[in-house]
Amino acid sequence: MRRDRQHRNHGFLRRIGEYVREQRVALMITQEELAERAQLHRTYVTDIENGFRNPAILTLARIALALELPMWKIVHFAENDDDPQVEVD
Amino acid sequence: MRRDRQHRNHGFLRRIGEYVREQRVALMITQEELAERAQLHRTYVTDIENGFRNPAILTLARIALALELPMWKIVHFAENDDDPQVEVD
Repeated sequence: MRRDRQHRNHGFLRRIGEYVREQRVALMITQEELAERAQLHRTYVTDIENGFRNPAILTLARIALALELPMWKIVHFAENDDDPQVEVD
Repeated sequence: MRRDRQHRNHGFLRRIGEYVREQRVALMITQEELAERAQLHRTYVTDIENGFRNPAILTLARIALALELPMWKIVHFAENDDDPQVEVD
């Protein structure tokens, strides 16, 4: 399984994962349900949420659709740690 | 060379390519220069601009950095054809 633990932009992938997890929890769905909605494997969703994957743009588009939000918001969050509209724990 | 001509989300990739080309032209740099800045092959940039590639999110991040703009703007444009701030011909 190819993961991106050592990628220099790891922080970016990690923040994407944080936002995906946060939005999934807000929708009150499991990783399995998100995976089903996005037609991905459950472990792939786990990896995304942990920042271990560097998904293709169309894969992220499927995840965004499954989360019922525009993809640009995921990217915006990942690029702007201090997004005031989003709470990060 | 793997391309994504027949992908069901082709329109999304095409709009990403449109925006990348538009912003590159606005910067008055060639595809070769963009490729060099983003550490990609020139033909890869050509494919991106034509919507033939489904880049990894970190690849798009490199392109955005090379274009001196936040990636979320590229995604926002691709998701919103009618972005009033951008002219598309």
